[in-house]
Amino acid sequence: MATYRAPVDDMMFLFEKLRDNSHYNSLEKYKEVSPDLAKDILEQAAKLTENLILPLAKVGDETPAKLENGIVRTPPGYKEAYKKFVDDGWVSLSCDPEYGGQGMPKTISSFFDEMLSAASLSFKLYSELSIGAYNCIFHHGNDSIKKKFLPNMVKGTWSGTMCLTEPVCGTDLGLLKTKAIEQKDGTYKLTGQKIFITSGDQDLTENIIHLVLARTLDAPEGTKGISLFLVPKIKVKEDGSLGQRNGVSTNSIESKMGIKGSATCVLNFDESIGHMIGPKNKGLSSMFTMMNLERIVVGVQGLGISEIAYQNALNYSKERKQGKSHNSKTKNGADLIIDHADIRRSLLNMKSIIEGERALSFWLAQQTEVSLYHNDSKIKQQASDLVSLMTPVVKSLFSDMGMEITSEAMQIFGGYGYTRDQGIEQLYRDNRITPIYEGTNSVQAIDLVFRKLVNKNGNIIDNYIQLIKQDIEKNKKINETKLFAEKLNQYLKILIDFTDWIEKSIKNSKDDVSAACNDYLKVLGLVAVGYSWLKILDISYKEIKNNKKFFEDKIETAKFFFDRVLPRIETHYKSGISGSKNIMNFKFD
Amino acid sequence: MATYRAPVDDMMFLFEKLRDNSHYNSLEKYKEVSPDLAKDILEQAAKLTENLILPLAKVGDETPAKLENGIVRTPPGYKEAYKKFVDDGWVSLSCDPEYGGQGMPKTISSFFDEMLSAASLSFKLYSELSIGAYNCIFHHGNDSIKKKFLPNMVKGTWSGTMCLTEPVCGTDLGLLKTKAIEQKDGTYKLTGQKIFITSGDQDLTENIIHLVLARTLDAPEGTKGISLFLVPKIKVKEDGSLGQRNGVSTNSIESKMGIKGSATCVLNFDESIGHMIGPKNKGLSSMFTMMNLERIVVGVQGLGISEIAYQNALNYSKERKQGKSHNSKTKNGADLIIDHADIRRSLLNMKSIIEGERALSFWLAQQTEVSLYHNDSKIKQQASDLVSLMTPVVKSLFSDMGMEITSEAMQIFGGYGYTRDQGIEQLYRDNRITPIYEGTNSVQAIDLVFRKLVNKNGNIIDNYIQLIKQDIEKNKKINETKLFAEKLNQYLKILIDFTDWIEKSIKNSKDDVSAACNDYLKVLGLVAVGYSWLKILDISYKEIKNNKKFFEDKIETAKFFFDRVLPRIETHYKSGISGSKNIMNFKFD
Repeated sequence: MATYRAPVDDMMFLFEKLRDNSHYNSLEKYKEVSPDLAKDILEQAAKLTENLILPLAKVGDETPAKLENGIVRTPPGYKEAYKKFVDDGWVSLSCDPEYGGQGMPKTISSFFDEMLSAASLSFKLYSELSIGAYNCIFHHGNDSIKKKFLPNMVKGTWSGTMCLTEPVCGTDLGLLKTKAIEQKDGTYKLTGQKIFITSGDQDLTENIIHLVLARTLDAPEGTKGISLFLVPKIKVKEDGSLGQRNGVSTNSIESKMGIKGSATCVLNFDESIGHMIGPKNKGLSSMFTMMNLERIVVGVQGLGISEIAYQNALNYSKERKQGKSHNSKTKNGADLIIDHADIRRSLLNMKSIIEGERALSFWLAQQTEVSLYHNDSKIKQQASDLVSLMTPVVKSLFSDMGMEITSEAMQIFGGYGYTRDQGIEQLYRDNRITPIYEGTNSVQAIDLVFRKLVNKNGNIIDNYIQLIKQDIEKNKKINETKLFAEKLNQYLKILIDFTDWIEKSIKNSKDDVSAACNDYLKVLGLVAVGYSWLKILDISYKEIKNNKKFFEDKIETAKFFFDRVLPRIETHYKSGISGSKNIMNFKFD
Repeated sequence: MATYRAPVDDMMFLFEKLRDNSHYNSLEKYKEVSPDLAKDILEQAAKLTENLILPLAKVGDETPAKLENGIVRTPPGYKEAYKKFVDDGWVSLSCDPEYGGQGMPKTISSFFDEMLSAASLSFKLYSELSIGAYNCIFHHGNDSIKKKFLPNMVKGTWSGTMCLTEPVCGTDLGLLKTKAIEQKDGTYKLTGQKIFITSGDQDLTENIIHLVLARTLDAPEGTKGISLFLVPKIKVKEDGSLGQRNGVSTNSIESKMGIKGSATCVLNFDESIGHMIGPKNKGLSSMFTMMNLERIVVGVQGLGISEIAYQNALNYSKERKQGKSHNSKTKNGADLIIDHADIRRSLLNMKSIIEGERALSFWLAQQTEVSLYHNDSKIKQQASDLVSLMTPVVKSLFSDMGMEITSEAMQIFGGYGYTRDQGIEQLYRDNRITPIYEGTNSVQAIDLVFRKLVNKNGNIIDNYIQLIKQDIEKNKKINETKLFAEKLNQYLKILIDFTDWIEKSIKNSKDDVSAACNDYLKVLGLVAVGYSWLKILDISYKEIKNNKKFFEDKIETAKFFFDRVLPRIETHYKSGISGSKNIMNFKFD
């Protein structure tokens, strides 16, 4: 079984030294969230995930969730663990105190998301979508709905789901068919089938609050005719107590490659009673509140799984002996594989990506909080635009890198990595959902190039590039970071050229842009991680006296990233701008 | 379940148009292997793999091989299919007529390897190692051993294995501990444990011939004290009939991520009677005959699995409708996803890699036959050197690309790709062993840079580069292929620079070379595939009038490869030559 130590030190380094967003720091509601409080929470979270959650990963893989007589049974031990999880208040970590939450910012809760993902993604998913549903209801529900449903969701005794996909519509929600017929009392009766519903049913909570996209009878075609409904599994009476079963049933659950502990359900809605959330026909935009936050969390899942894979590969490389290293002092027998240059290269590749991603994710957490809660609407909007720019990048880059890193970890284990005992292959299988769900990574890339670079508020990518330029200029003047800043600047120039190419091509050949979007996303993502490393370097050289080992480690890891990871940008650029004529004209048999 | 159509047309194109090795063409023993014969065999092989073998893939995944009361049971249907497979003579395809084989060259049998791998890698493995063992005995066994064991192995009623790995030794065979004690009659008694033994036991054949590496009592330490032994599961009497059980038993079988239909065994040898094969203490070099041929086959496995993944992704993209393409003519509803630029790019990426690899593999098959059977020892040695150079490249590149391609296929299937019904995720899991077994891809890369570039016969990589240069120079003079030749020449220059860097660095810092070896292997591999495409282009422009659709398709696919795949070389080079000081000095916690 894989082992795990939550990287609290690295998280606290970010929380203490890279909380550098002045707008975030001025948010009144988080004034009292001190490093001491953060540390206390992260240490408790570490205990929970290392001890209680981690063992659930293997159990869930070996004894998947199953459907028995119409009821979904979670794997052995999930119920008991979920009860403790709820009792200790972990579901409510980031929720609003008005509904019983602890009101912690994403600068803390996203670290918790990372830890949970590392320990057991399957277990995490049972509460993750609840938070998504909570966010959606919190931002778009009316007061009576909020009062009726949120407190139990925050407590964790009720959970939530997002019901979007149908058999013929995944990416293209315009095709969805579920019908909602208005009743005299203002409620709706929903009928249709939803598929791939994560935690669509389970035996952990007393009720499940489904958020369902559907069409009213008079709705226009396509995406402009989609409304959002709240459909409880068990109807809730006016006094908040549970009533009768609603018309929602589990048709089947998917047999999947990984995250087997998580129940992925086909749900049948059969004249189930629902409440409309937000304005009619505007369901997609309400759902997107939740989708966007969720997409960032999927990126963080990839990060968490990368971390645990790295830790296990590192540990194994310090135990396994094979072959002589070039500087071997061993007379009889072999050296530890960590003494071999190629293994070290692989480990540093993982480490440099993981720590850079964590810093980028922390930067994004600050922006997200500003985008949700800043008083100045202009500042709020600017942050919101940056968040919406970086959401597809973080989702795709971190989940793809999660595959690279879990794969490299398997290689370090050799033949043992392919067997089920070590837990490494499970990480590889579990992470493989992350480039797919919440919109495949290609869909993210299309979203990025066609909707996120430039919007009604102006040229968002340009604003982001300016931010990076400022840090580059600042660091060019510092002896220690000068060379790093100059190197990043070379790659930033490629990003700028690629962006110009996108902006030009979008007018003449949208297919050129579509064929380039995955490469563009990677270029932007790698520059963003490089930018995060530059921030870390800046701090590291300043603080090196205070913790030599920690900051030397950061500086050397950054060097690796600049030397061996950033050069990928050149290939992506060259490949990306080669056009689509040949691609579009190709005659597939 | 995945569907499969063996790509006989593409294979026949190679067989008819790219059989361009004059030394191969002069081999007396293959004079009668005409295109008509090849086509006949490939069509029969297509029928077999599409109809009989393909359904075994899913069965094997759902009902893995298991150990019952000490006996390995293969999945349902394997026994019946294996019987037909043997009865129809498929095991003997490439074996020598002297022992009952059909004597077909690798220019045909490697296509068959590809088809079998695509249809069911697990099923294939039950006969694949038999051929490996056959090759080893054929080249190193004495006449009496050959006469006693080979005919039944060729027939397929007996199978073979390679027993190298032990719990503490995989890559580093110098550590192996299995003991062989000489008996008065000249046989040996072997005692020890071997792990990860593919088809170590099964219920398909009457006997299993294990080839086992072990140490005699007086053997020197390390790799210089390893001998090779033939150890039958059931002892064979002088008259060739089966006697009593030998001291070989199955301790357990591995629970694996994929290829679940294949039994991967832990074998206990307990005073089992064995016969030494080849000279004492030279067991490794005898085993390497088999290992090297086997490594090429692993590459071909990756190619076969890539092909079936591509076919299924292509089919799905012609059925699934999502979203509007940029040139949509659809009024209501969505377009087929094959109309979207990004999906087309992904499909062409797969196709351009697959067809280039197949051509490279065909080139290598010709060289391999020359290396085994040419009368002129110099020509034979030159071919042998090229084969040994390209063996680690084909093994690693094709198996890694197999992961890229099966992964891209999954992405095209979206959420459905992650469920078990479609068979795509199984291809991804099954292929994941190929970068690991027969020496991990990093071990291949180390082998390449330290042992294969230059050997006692001279500078092998330089000879290979000269071959490519000749084709480039020739094609520079042809209008249609001029631009392709020039582009390939740019990348060849990078290969030359990288090679110079390796040759210099190997003197001063072997760690620099070790840290660069994976990147170097990729550069050499991509250039080699580009070289194969240049050969295809040369033919295609000449032949275009004879089959417009086929050759236009080739030309357009080649364009994609040159525009969008070859640029990866730049990143590998830049990353590769960045040195190892930082990597070697890093203090891992």
